[in-house]
Amino acid sequence: MKIAVIGTGSVGRTLAGTLETLGHQVTIGTRDIAATLARDTPDQLGTPPFALWHADRPEVGLATFAEAAADGELVVNATSGLASLEALSGAGAANLAGKVLVDVANPLDYSQGFPPGLDPVDSDSLGERIQRAFPEARVVKTLCTVNTKVMVDPARVGGGEHTIFLSGDDAEAKAVVGALLAAMGWRDIIDLGGIRTARGQEMLMRNWLNLLTTLGTADFNIKVVR
Amino acid sequence: MKIAVIGTGSVGRTLAGTLETLGHQVTIGTRDIAATLARDTPDQLGTPPFALWHADRPEVGLATFAEAAADGELVVNATSGLASLEALSGAGAANLAGKVLVDVANPLDYSQGFPPGLDPVDSDSLGERIQRAFPEARVVKTLCTVNTKVMVDPARVGGGEHTIFLSGDDAEAKAVVGALLAAMGWRDIIDLGGIRTARGQEMLMRNWLNLLTTLGTADFNIKVVR
Repeated sequence: MKIAVIGTGSVGRTLAGTLETLGHQVTIGTRDIAATLARDTPDQLGTPPFALWHADRPEVGLATFAEAAADGELVVNATSGLASLEALSGAGAANLAGKVLVDVANPLDYSQGFPPGLDPVDSDSLGERIQRAFPEARVVKTLCTVNTKVMVDPARVGGGEHTIFLSGDDAEAKAVVGALLAAMGWRDIIDLGGIRTARGQEMLMRNWLNLLTTLGTADFNIKVVR
Repeated sequence: MKIAVIGTGSVGRTLAGTLETLGHQVTIGTRDIAATLARDTPDQLGTPPFALWHADRPEVGLATFAEAAADGELVVNATSGLASLEALSGAGAANLAGKVLVDVANPLDYSQGFPPGLDPVDSDSLGERIQRAFPEARVVKTLCTVNTKVMVDPARVGGGEHTIFLSGDDAEAKAVVGALLAAMGWRDIIDLGGIRTARGQEMLMRNWLNLLTTLGTADFNIKVVR
């Protein structure tokens, strides 16, 4: 499948590399190709320059937001949450229409420092905002409840015996995403229902941040025991 | 230990009955004893009249908020979240001072129907509000992430192999509460840190409500796999 990953940070890179390894044809979308390739220092989160990563994964394409989305059969939003709507607007509503749009972002607001808050929270979610902004896209919220490394390698924690969630209004889109998750090694995938249930996924972030501090590692996840 | 359970609903009754069975001397606190005993129809949540329950558990005392709290060495807040501060004010700051105050409530706001929202959420928590309102109490947030039946009988789900959390500023108070949890059968108890981490516990409610709908049962919990 031709997949566009919107976002050049560690989440976008990790998902792009893994999806390429799984046999998909992946293109990363960025606001400004030249600027992305020219950067030669780590970003504010400490992520190494994109060009360094891309030198090891030349098979992953690099294009503008709009070019990547236009060419993709499935689009992944891997931008930072507060920048997602703007980035997806750059991708273009017409280029997202009818496509599965996988939203893995959390709307983290660092304006008050660490730990970040969520904006929106409880009465709305980023997943719903994206679905409202792009009503012809088939938004599926997932993977926002674990660290990047765990996203693509669930077995690195507890032998993979833990849970990942799906939220979305389009059952067929959720089936497509569920198959991608299974290919990455996810075995316990819970479909929570419509995109409104993205609120619950995003709000897990607050306790995830508690646990990050308490456990001193991001290598954990929750399992729904039932 | 002499324990006061503030709140006559199903959470208060279940915790009171279990703590009594575990050997503690338990008194339930209510706003109005006569009114509580006179009620002869189920409440709005379908909980049977208190007097019916109390007939089977006469060894559990019934007193006013203030009498129960004054007599208790440890106090449990088992009121509905939006009524907690008022009920605890009725119990009286002087009667809570220096005592372990176990807060198991979620600040559920049903004003928009079901599922309820949380108020406060993310930038504050009920646990923190209680600690601020009663600075001399030693507030410990716990048990707000599971159904009432699971609270007191974790083994009813997955053999008890799942997680419960503690948040609070007083390490000794958390140790006391951790021992009570262990007596109820909890084996995986994670101390998240200060009372500020109550936000993460309370915010799990949103996905708990998702799962309640999806799974069609309240007999579940999360395990932190690490």
